[in-house]
Formats: sequence, structure tokens, C-alpha cells
Amino acid sequence: MARHKLLAGAALVASGMLVPHATGNEGKRVWSLGDQLAVPEVRALAIAADGKSAAYVVRIADRESDRTVAILRRVDLANGETRELLRARWIDQLNRIPDTSDWSARIDVGAGVQLYRIGANGETHPIVVHPATAIFGDSEGAVFPGYGHAPLRTGVRAHSWSPDGQRLFYVTVDAELKGKAIRYDGEVTSERARRRSPGQARASIYLREPDGTDTLLATRPQSDLTTFFDRNHVRWEKDEVRYDVMEIGSGGQQKVVTMAWAFADRKARVLDPKVERVYWLLPGPRGGRLSSQGNGDSRDLVETLPGGKTHNYGRFAFAVGDGRAVGGFRSQDGQRAIAGTRMIDDPRFGLAVIEKDRVHTIDTEHSLSHCDFVPTLDHGACIAQGHTTPPAVVAVDVPRGAVERVASVSPLHDGIDPLKIEPRTWVNRHGYKATGYVVWPRGYEKGKRYPAIVVTHGTDGDDRFANRENQWEYPVQLFAERGYFVLLVNDPSSRQNAEIRAAYDAWINETQDLPPETLRQLIWLNGVASYEDAVKELVDAGVIDPARVGIAGYSRGSQMVNVAMTNSHVFRAASSGDGGYLEPALYADVAGSYDAVFGGPPTDPAALVHYRRLSPSLRAGEVCGAILQQVAAPYVPSIDFHAALRKAGVPAQLSLYPGEDAASDETHIFHIPSNRIGAMQENIAWFDYWLLGKRDPGSPFADRYPLWDKMGAAAPRCDAKGKEPDG
Amino acid sequence: MARHKLLAGAALVASGMLVPHATGNEGKRVWSLGDQLAVPEVRALAIAADGKSAAYVVRIADRESDRTVAILRRVDLANGETRELLRARWIDQLNRIPDTSDWSARIDVGAGVQLYRIGANGETHPIVVHPATAIFGDSEGAVFPGYGHAPLRTGVRAHSWSPDGQRLFYVTVDAELKGKAIRYDGEVTSERARRRSPGQARASIYLREPDGTDTLLATRPQSDLTTFFDRNHVRWEKDEVRYDVMEIGSGGQQKVVTMAWAFADRKARVLDPKVERVYWLLPGPRGGRLSSQGNGDSRDLVETLPGGKTHNYGRFAFAVGDGRAVGGFRSQDGQRAIAGTRMIDDPRFGLAVIEKDRVHTIDTEHSLSHCDFVPTLDHGACIAQGHTTPPAVVAVDVPRGAVERVASVSPLHDGIDPLKIEPRTWVNRHGYKATGYVVWPRGYEKGKRYPAIVVTHGTDGDDRFANRENQWEYPVQLFAERGYFVLLVNDPSSRQNAEIRAAYDAWINETQDLPPETLRQLIWLNGVASYEDAVKELVDAGVIDPARVGIAGYSRGSQMVNVAMTNSHVFRAASSGDGGYLEPALYADVAGSYDAVFGGPPTDPAALVHYRRLSPSLRAGEVCGAILQQVAAPYVPSIDFHAALRKAGVPAQLSLYPGEDAASDETHIFHIPSNRIGAMQENIAWFDYWLLGKRDPGSPFADRYPLWDKMGAAAPRCDAKGKEPDG
Repeated sequence: MARHKLLAGAALVASGMLVPHATGNEGKRVWSLGDQLAVPEVRALAIAADGKSAAYVVRIADRESDRTVAILRRVDLANGETRELLRARWIDQLNRIPDTSDWSARIDVGAGVQLYRIGANGETHPIVVHPATAIFGDSEGAVFPGYGHAPLRTGVRAHSWSPDGQRLFYVTVDAELKGKAIRYDGEVTSERARRRSPGQARASIYLREPDGTDTLLATRPQSDLTTFFDRNHVRWEKDEVRYDVMEIGSGGQQKVVTMAWAFADRKARVLDPKVERVYWLLPGPRGGRLSSQGNGDSRDLVETLPGGKTHNYGRFAFAVGDGRAVGGFRSQDGQRAIAGTRMIDDPRFGLAVIEKDRVHTIDTEHSLSHCDFVPTLDHGACIAQGHTTPPAVVAVDVPRGAVERVASVSPLHDGIDPLKIEPRTWVNRHGYKATGYVVWPRGYEKGKRYPAIVVTHGTDGDDRFANRENQWEYPVQLFAERGYFVLLVNDPSSRQNAEIRAAYDAWINETQDLPPETLRQLIWLNGVASYEDAVKELVDAGVIDPARVGIAGYSRGSQMVNVAMTNSHVFRAASSGDGGYLEPALYADVAGSYDAVFGGPPTDPAALVHYRRLSPSLRAGEVCGAILQQVAAPYVPSIDFHAALRKAGVPAQLSLYPGEDAASDETHIFHIPSNRIGAMQENIAWFDYWLLGKRDPGSPFADRYPLWDKMGAAAPRCDAKGKEPDG
Repeated sequence: MARHKLLAGAALVASGMLVPHATGNEGKRVWSLGDQLAVPEVRALAIAADGKSAAYVVRIADRESDRTVAILRRVDLANGETRELLRARWIDQLNRIPDTSDWSARIDVGAGVQLYRIGANGETHPIVVHPATAIFGDSEGAVFPGYGHAPLRTGVRAHSWSPDGQRLFYVTVDAELKGKAIRYDGEVTSERARRRSPGQARASIYLREPDGTDTLLATRPQSDLTTFFDRNHVRWEKDEVRYDVMEIGSGGQQKVVTMAWAFADRKARVLDPKVERVYWLLPGPRGGRLSSQGNGDSRDLVETLPGGKTHNYGRFAFAVGDGRAVGGFRSQDGQRAIAGTRMIDDPRFGLAVIEKDRVHTIDTEHSLSHCDFVPTLDHGACIAQGHTTPPAVVAVDVPRGAVERVASVSPLHDGIDPLKIEPRTWVNRHGYKATGYVVWPRGYEKGKRYPAIVVTHGTDGDDRFANRENQWEYPVQLFAERGYFVLLVNDPSSRQNAEIRAAYDAWINETQDLPPETLRQLIWLNGVASYEDAVKELVDAGVIDPARVGIAGYSRGSQMVNVAMTNSHVFRAASSGDGGYLEPALYADVAGSYDAVFGGPPTDPAALVHYRRLSPSLRAGEVCGAILQQVAAPYVPSIDFHAALRKAGVPAQLSLYPGEDAASDETHIFHIPSNRIGAMQENIAWFDYWLLGKRDPGSPFADRYPLWDKMGAAAPRCDAKGKEPDG
């Protein structure tokens, strides 16, 4: 049914890419554009207290409504029976309600994002419904921008149950109407980088008590990001609830403070961080906090105890603490902890089970990306997925270290004949390692040379299923179906040695400890060298045609694409998504960061030298290829780069994918299905045209070919060694 | 009644400035803040065909609704009896309907801006009411920005009656919903400078025929600025109607084309401009077009005839063709023309009556700012006004050259005892003349030294009544009541000699014919020299205290204020309104203009030298005074200048006056009465504090004093000669 809808769009059918057809492999079929669009994004998973079932939330594009919808499903862990409980505009913060078989979640079923109880059959009962006046999203008057979702009118920001289910901590938000007040100084300068006029809100922190009464613990200003974003890191103790808030000092410095609210005397106090230290993040079995330390191919797993002493569990080929891995768990008796791991070499996700004197890992062929466990941590449920494994629910037996598949999350994708996708670690000419994957074209024939596209986004090239945080609207799998090699290449690891780590530290901490030239080499040109050398290896092996190589990336990847195109002549076409960091126009909005990278503002002649070496728009004359930029809003830096390219005669296109209405924008990670389909089709048309010289009269971008012809004919000619002056 | 409302605001009463009190002069009173706010802005005037009455439109701030409202009044020219016909959100394009005693106008009475007939008693009857989907104004989705008015939903854009009243030419507009289309390239880059996401519209040009049927003559795209702004310059001929439209060439060049629609065969044709030349602008009695030519203190009045031959009427101390003067008229018999004049030395507005062999002027003590005449041009009605003359309706007897006052436009202001305001022409140290006015403080005492404020806005310092295009929200008259000298100083005239004219030509035509240094000297520093020398003259005369001199200006004046403060140490305080030209961040939006001024973009090291000499934010370290910026939106250049000032330790405030709602902004010329009151009070508080050290606990800005104290204490010290390093 869902697939049927996906096939309904005339433009899609016309382009011929949506019609599934079988491969030789046991009736399985190849990737279609509809498959790319319908890749489910698992957002949350929670196991029932009895361990017999689990619930999870996926977000999936719905073509009919042109929205990304959220779906809540329950899986019987014994037999895999899966039932859809609820479908809504938004579902998150899924929790089991202790001592019941019900769930709670923030849900938008039309009244804004509110807190509901979900019964066994998916029926919803309001727990907290608050007027939804504050907007989170990329719209006019929103209190905070969104990241991949439609503007969300929000009543309830967060919630947490006490372990006995008798108490509920929750946070509501209220927009503050700006009215006609004049705004001054910082209230104005903060809007420099804002596309949309921002709104203001206040948060109220409540405790619902066993008798059902609500007590207001605090109201918090919008500057308290711990309340507005981090859900206060709530920890329930026997006699009190502890939660974090952020205070802003007179000089603007941010400080997280832990509050405790005692149930008996109904008073709040501030916890002394030296005495009453609380480890909510990656707790270890010794009462401390786990982390991975050191540089290189393996890391020390260390628990830092209250007081600062450490215990070293040994050296492992994985790291804990990666934000993309599963979060940390500690058993009720405190004897066992589970931390999510990411392998350093072949970047897949697993679990480390840490007991006082023992560490064992739970590792599968691919990745364990979302997990939850019963309170004893004896068993749990996870989402398993990998490049060639569509997501599935698995049951985990912790003592045995066994993982068993229970149910598919996406039968649609189970029907696809997997592509050949190999993990790789490349060593570039400077000796730096970069991990990644090679996606082989379907039906590869030895001896034939293929076109290729490098796709890059920081270190998101890991073993997950068509992960959009990495591949954005670059339809990697469809490119492989269409005869391209795709190289998913990560940035060289920033922790492989002390030198590159120092460069990243200087960049991230915005120090000016290192000269701009060092950062340029290690953080940008080093990555370009990795892409070039990865391509060269496959060229030398005779499988890639060096005249038909492209590159694509969004956000951090967009930086890298823009730097690659202005420093390398390997790539004949590029697609750069929603980025513009390194452009001079952004200086005032990221001054500290640019001071570290360039040594000062672009109006300082000494720093301008460095901008002219690195800022893509100032190197437009070096480009030897066609550059498409796809953006979610008319960003100034993207516009500047586009204008510079066109001025230099470089074939270039700047495509703005609009929001749902005039008052809102598409988000950095696109959330509007028609935009996603459009962006993928545009990337296909762009690379097919500029790398292969192919035109598809059925493409919705076919009307752009005459302009591309004209730009191509007028472009400065480049040869293999570099750019030659025309004529 | 209206005044009563103006006095109602608590903040205003508390500040003590709204309470009128008498002067010694025959029971007349002094200026109040309410008077400043209530200065009427005359927008249109039309005389009845029989010449016995005239109608006019004024816009006046209405405190109660916090809107600027439009009022239509009719005046009996025989006895001055004035009647209010209509009060609405918007009224413009006032026309008499030929052969009737009714009027027509575009009016917004709640259904958007539509075309109505207005009867003798002010009753309105719809002529054309079209769905008002297109917005003109500074709001989200507007098709064009506004200039001093609330966002106007618009159904009818323009209209014109045939001389016999039998036919009506009119234009409707329809917004085009953008929907979900991807936008490309120029559609994206054009939004770089836009605060609000723009909308799109199409215009439809109609002819209503004698039988009442409507014929669609053409639909026009938004790129046709002649249709969207210039109301097509409609000219009625016996057998056809002629109108202009703008066509855009393939290279983007704009070309105005005249179309003719023949009534008989109902066909449109393009007029050959070489054969069928039509002079709609400043027509002369010989069938040509009038203009003033030459440089210096007097100009040749020239009529350029079809074919290019010219007739010179002689040399006069005025210029015709100034956009602020009355437009041109030609009598039915073609024997007489009337052109509005602006005096070159003492810049007031009058009329030149031009017959084939004779020119005579109609000049009053002050200015004639809006006029209309009966078809013979024998007599007419005008608005007369001057610095010390509130606007009034006057009757003009053209053959006799007589002007007779008929009725007041603003009895409220007639009750004010006029200030002493003298026209001046200053010659600066470089020999350049600048015109302007000196406003004397009320009750000036010889021998005492007074504080002073220079107010500047290009050449808008002319003889009109408290003209807001010149003085913006700087309450010049109230400053004089409070003991300040105010110097209204124009830019040195750009036509006083060939050298400065060449500099302005290079700037305006965006050539790079002259070196940046020449433009900097002649267009910016030359003006600063005029301000300094005007102040010096009054200092030398013993009337101004050199330690208490400020400067204020908006838009072009804001450029000049920012340049003055970063190049001169004469001014201890400044207020800079809604401007930011010359800031590097604006480069991409005004590239041609900046290339002329600076020689290239700021990222070109050779051009950067010139930015560092002239861009205010790059000279923040040179400032010796406190700088307030009042803005209508969070403009990037204003933000950059503010940030640079604060970084340099300069006392600075950036105040954003908000729009009516989250989706719209205040306009460049403020239109929200509460913002106007606020901005004037802020300017009073700012100059009183920084020039006089005065605090008013009742000021709505009193809560800013502690911050000003802190900024003042931390500011780098300056002495008379310049800035000294601290400590």
C-alpha cells in the first residue's frame, strides 16, 4: 500500500527509476527511487519492563501527504509479531510507564506536541496537554531552529517517570509574545545569521506527585539550553529527583547546575558538584564515568571515579562515548554497565558489557544502533542494521552475548538484492588513514572502467542502512544501480595521531594556537588528498574511469566538496549540499571559529591572505568541473560561492528547495518528501549529464539541459593537469 | 479630540514633553512631542474640473489605533470650508472623475487596496474590487517592499480616466503562489539582501469601455517595474490610449516600450519611439520636454524637441525636474506649461509658467509642494508650506501669478509659535557650497553658548514643514525647544561644478572612471568638512559650545553620520538611522556601486585598502563619541558597525524598532506611531545624556542609563585634537 502510493507520482514513473525490477538473485529486486525515499529512520526504542515486547518509533516519508510521518510499532520479542500502534505527525521520547504495560511519548496528533499515554491497542490518553504556542523548527517566530522536521508547535518539551511510576517530571513551554518592545544590542546582533525572525519562550518544570497534583519546580529562560534541549538529565533518587539546568553568568558563560527537589520537604537545593557528583552519562560499574582515551587504532577504556581516580579496563579496537552509538546503561544492582561502541577501523556500532573486572563485547556482522534493556541488563532489544542489512529488531541475551533477529523494520527493503559494499581504510599520500566504504555498481564487469562518485560527510560513513545523516539526498544505492562506483570516504580520523588531534582541538576550541596553514593542511587539504588517493587506487586498479569522477557532500561534506573542487582537478562534477562554512561572508557569525582557521577577519589584510588560499568563492577560478549547490534556504555563503563560480565561467547551479509555506523553510536534513525526491532526481540528472553526457527527457530537470549546454560550452577548458586558459 | 488622544499615553505625560505650554507670543504655544508626531504628510491633491473645490489626502499618525491613517478632505476654494470625506487605512491616486463632481482613489477600507468612487458626502462606491492577494510592504511574502506604510494587500495597482470620463484604464495584481517549485540561481541569489521571503505577482492591464465592459489589454510579469511602480504613464489620445511597459532583454537589460491600444479596431501596437515620441514627463509648450542644464548657481531652462533640437528659455536660479517639486502640466491648447521648481540657493519649491516666448515664476515666501490645475491651467490649488509655515491649501491665479491662502491643513500646528529658522549657504574649507537651515533655540540669549545637533539627509534640507523625509525621527523642533541649535545641512550640491558632478556621475552610473580616493574626498569627506565648518562658524560666533555638538541622519544621512564619526572629532554623540551603505558586508548586494567607490570587493587586497579608509566598521577605533543606531530590521551592516564599535570600546546602542507582527518589519520611514514616539524619545534621551549629561527619570529609556554610564566610563578618552590611548 505504502509502496503503491510511492509509485503514484507521474514524474517518478516517467523517469523510469521507480519501477522495481528483479535481479537474477532469487526473485529479489534492485533499488528504486521509492526505496531510497522510504528508508525508515528509527528514532527510539524501548523495551517493556517484563522484557517480552519492545516498542519503537520510525519516521518515514509519506508521499500522499508530502510529510514525514512518525509510526509507533510494538514487537513481540518471542515471535516477532509486529503491530502498528499509532501514526502521527510526530512521536518521540518513547518510555515505558513503570509497572504498567503502557507507553508514554510526546506526540503531535493535531494539538501540537503533547504528552500522551499509549495503551496496548495504540489508543492515546492525554497525560499533559498544554497550549502549544512555542514553535521548534525553521519558521518565522520559532524559538529554536529545527533539524529535519516540520515546524513543531510544542506544549510539552520533556518528561521522565520515577522508577516506581508514581511521579512524573515534565517540562512545558510557552511562547512569549514580543509585542512592540524595542530590542537592543545583543538582541539585534544575534539575528545577523538568522533567516527567520526568532521567537522567545519560557519553560516551566513540573513534578506530578503520587496524588496527581502538579507542583511547579521552576520556570526557566530560553538561555537554559539544558532545559530546552537536553531534557534536564533527570535522575530519580529515593527521596528526591535531581535535574540539571543551565545558568548564564554575567559574562555570558554557560554553567550547568544540578538541582535536587526533595519529596518530603518540597524544597529545591543546588547540588554541590564536588561532593554529590552524579554521572548520568556513560556510567560505569565502579560508580564513575566511562570514556575512551588516547589516539591511534585502539583506545584505553577508562572509568573516572568520583575524586578523579581512574580505572583502566584495557585497550580495545573500539571507542565508547560516540554520540551515534547506543547510550550507556547501568544495572539496578550497579554491578554491570553497557556502553555503545564504535569500531575504529571498520566503523560499525556494537555494545561493550562492563563488569568490575571484565569487559566483553556484543558485536554483530553489522551495527546495533538503538537498544534498551530490562533493569537487570540481562536482556534487551536493539535495532540491527548495516549497509546491506535493512533495519531489524533483534533480541539480546547479555550474559550469553547472543543476538537474535526478531522482526523486520522494513519488509520493503528486505526485498532488495543487496549491493556489494565493502569497508575500506585508505592511507593517503601524507600517511593519514581515512575509513569508508566502496559501493560496487550492480553487475560489475571486470575489465570495464566505471564512473565514480565520492560521497563524504565527516565521519558519518559508517555501517548503517542508507543512513541519511551521511548520504543526505545523494541516492548512493541508485547510483550503484545505474553503473557508478560510489566511494563513501570519511575525513581522516582526528584521533589517529597527536598532530591532527591538536589541529582539530584548535579548530573546535577556537584557540589560535596553530597557524592557519596547519589547519588548512590537516583539516581540509588532508581530506582532499584522501579522496584523490582513494580514487587513484581504483583508477590504478583499472575499475574507475578517471575522466568521469564526481564528488558530493552536505554540511561538513559541503565544505569538503567546495574545497576539493577549488584545489583538485580530479572531479568533473560536484553536488554540494546546504553548507557555506569557510566563506568570508560568514565571518561575523562564527568569528571565533574563523579566527582560529584564518587568523582574523577577512578585512584584516594579514588574515585575508589565508581566506584567499582556502575560501571557495575566492578560488572560483581554480575550478575544473560543474558545481551544483542544493540549499534549504537562500544562505548568503552559498549565494556568494554560486555568484563567484558563474563570474569565473564555471558551470554552476544553485537550487533552493522551499519550505512548506512562505513562513517556513526546508530543514538542513530535508523533511519534505517532494523535496527529497526532487533533490535526488536533480543529483542523478546532474551527475549523469556532467559525468556521462547523458540526458533523460523524462527527468523533471530536463528543462535545465539547454542552460547546462550553454554553461558547458562557455566554461574554461581544463586538461588532466589543470586548468588552461581558453583559446 | 485628536490631540486629546495624543496626550493619553502615560509614558508621554511622564516625560513632560507632551504638555503644551504657552510662549510669550500672543497665547501661542511651543512644540510638543505630540506635535512632532502629528505633522501631516500631504500625499495628493486634485482640483475639481470647475475649479471651485479641491480634494487632498493627508496621512497622520493615530495614537489610538497605533496606525498611520489616511484622510481625504474637500476644500471649498472660495471660502476655505473644509470637510473630512473619508478616513481609511490607505488612500492614494486621487483623481477627479471627468464630467462629474465625484473623485476616484485607491482606498483600503478593509478589503485591501481597491478602486472606489467617492461621492460628495464621502460615500464610497466600488469601481474595481479585485481579490487582494498581492502584498506591497515589508512583510513575509510581499511582492515589493514598502516605503513608510503598513503591508498593503492590493487588488488594484493603478488607474487613469480618459479626459471625457468614458473610459477607465486600470491595473489589477494577483499574487502567484509559489507552491513547491524549486527555485534556481538568480531566483535564489536575489534573496541575498532580502530580510523577508519575497512573493511573486502578475499584473493585468484592463480597459473599461464606455458600455462598461472590461477588456484585458495585457498581463505583465513582476519584472515590469513600469507597470508595478510607475503606473504605466498613461496618455489618452483621441482614438487610442497609450501606456508604457518595461521589457527585460535576454541580458537582463530594462527597456521601456510604449504601447497603444486603438479603441476602434481593439488592437495593441508598439509605438516607434523615433516617430511617435511622447513626452509625459515635464512637457513644454513647444511639444518637447523641459529640463534644467548646466552646473553652478543658475541653470539653463531648456526644451528638447522631437528630433533632438533644443530651445533655451534662459538662465534661472532654479531647477526643474526635481522629484520633490510639483510635476509638469500642459494646457489643453498646448500653449502653456507649468513645471515645479526648486531654488538652487535657498531650496524652496515654486512654479515656473512657461509659454512659447515667456517664462514667469510663481513663488511664495515658502514652498508650493503639491498642485493641480484646471485643464486651461488658468487657475489651480496647491499646498503651501515652509519650515515655519504649517501646510495650507492655497488658490493660484496663474495669469496674475497670485497665491492666496484658502484653508489650513493642520490647525493643530497653526497654534504653535514659530521657531526662528534661517536659510544658510555654507562654503567649506575646500570652497564647496552646501545649503541648509539654522534652527535657533527658543528664547536664545546672546552671549550664552548652546549645544548643537547637525541633522543631514542628502539634499532634503529644504523649505517644507518638519519634513520627515529630511528629519526622520529626529525631533528637530523639540530639540530647539529644549535649548539646542539644530543645523540642517545638505550635502554639497553635486552640480556646483564639473569636478563634483563627475564624482557623483561615476558613483551613480557605477563607472570606475575615477579613483576611489576622489570619490571618498568629494562625496563623503567633503560633506563632513561642510558639517564641521558650519559648526565652526557658529562656534566662532560664540553661540555654540564646541564640547556639546552632535550629529544625526538616516539613510544617506546615516552614511554621512557614520563617516563623520569615524573621521571627525567634532561630534560627541550621534544618531544614525537605518543605514549601512559603505559596510563591507553589503558588497555582494551592491557590487557595481561598491566597485565604483572602492575599486572592487573587500576580498581584493587592492580594494581592501580603500575599505579600510572609508568603511565605518573598519575605522571604529577612530571614533570619539557615542553612536546610537536605530533600525527598522536587523540589517547586517548596522549589526557589523555596532559590533565593531563595542569591540573598540565606543559607547554604542543598536535599537531595533519592531514591525506590527512577527511576519513584518517597521519600514525605512517609520509608519507605526508608537515606534515614532519611541524613536524620538530615544534620540532626546541619547543627546541629552551624551551631550548635556542630563537624565530624565521619566524617560522610557531611563533603564538604559546604567549601561550608558558603564560604557561611558570604559570608553577610550578623547581630547580636542583626537583620541588618546587610555592610561
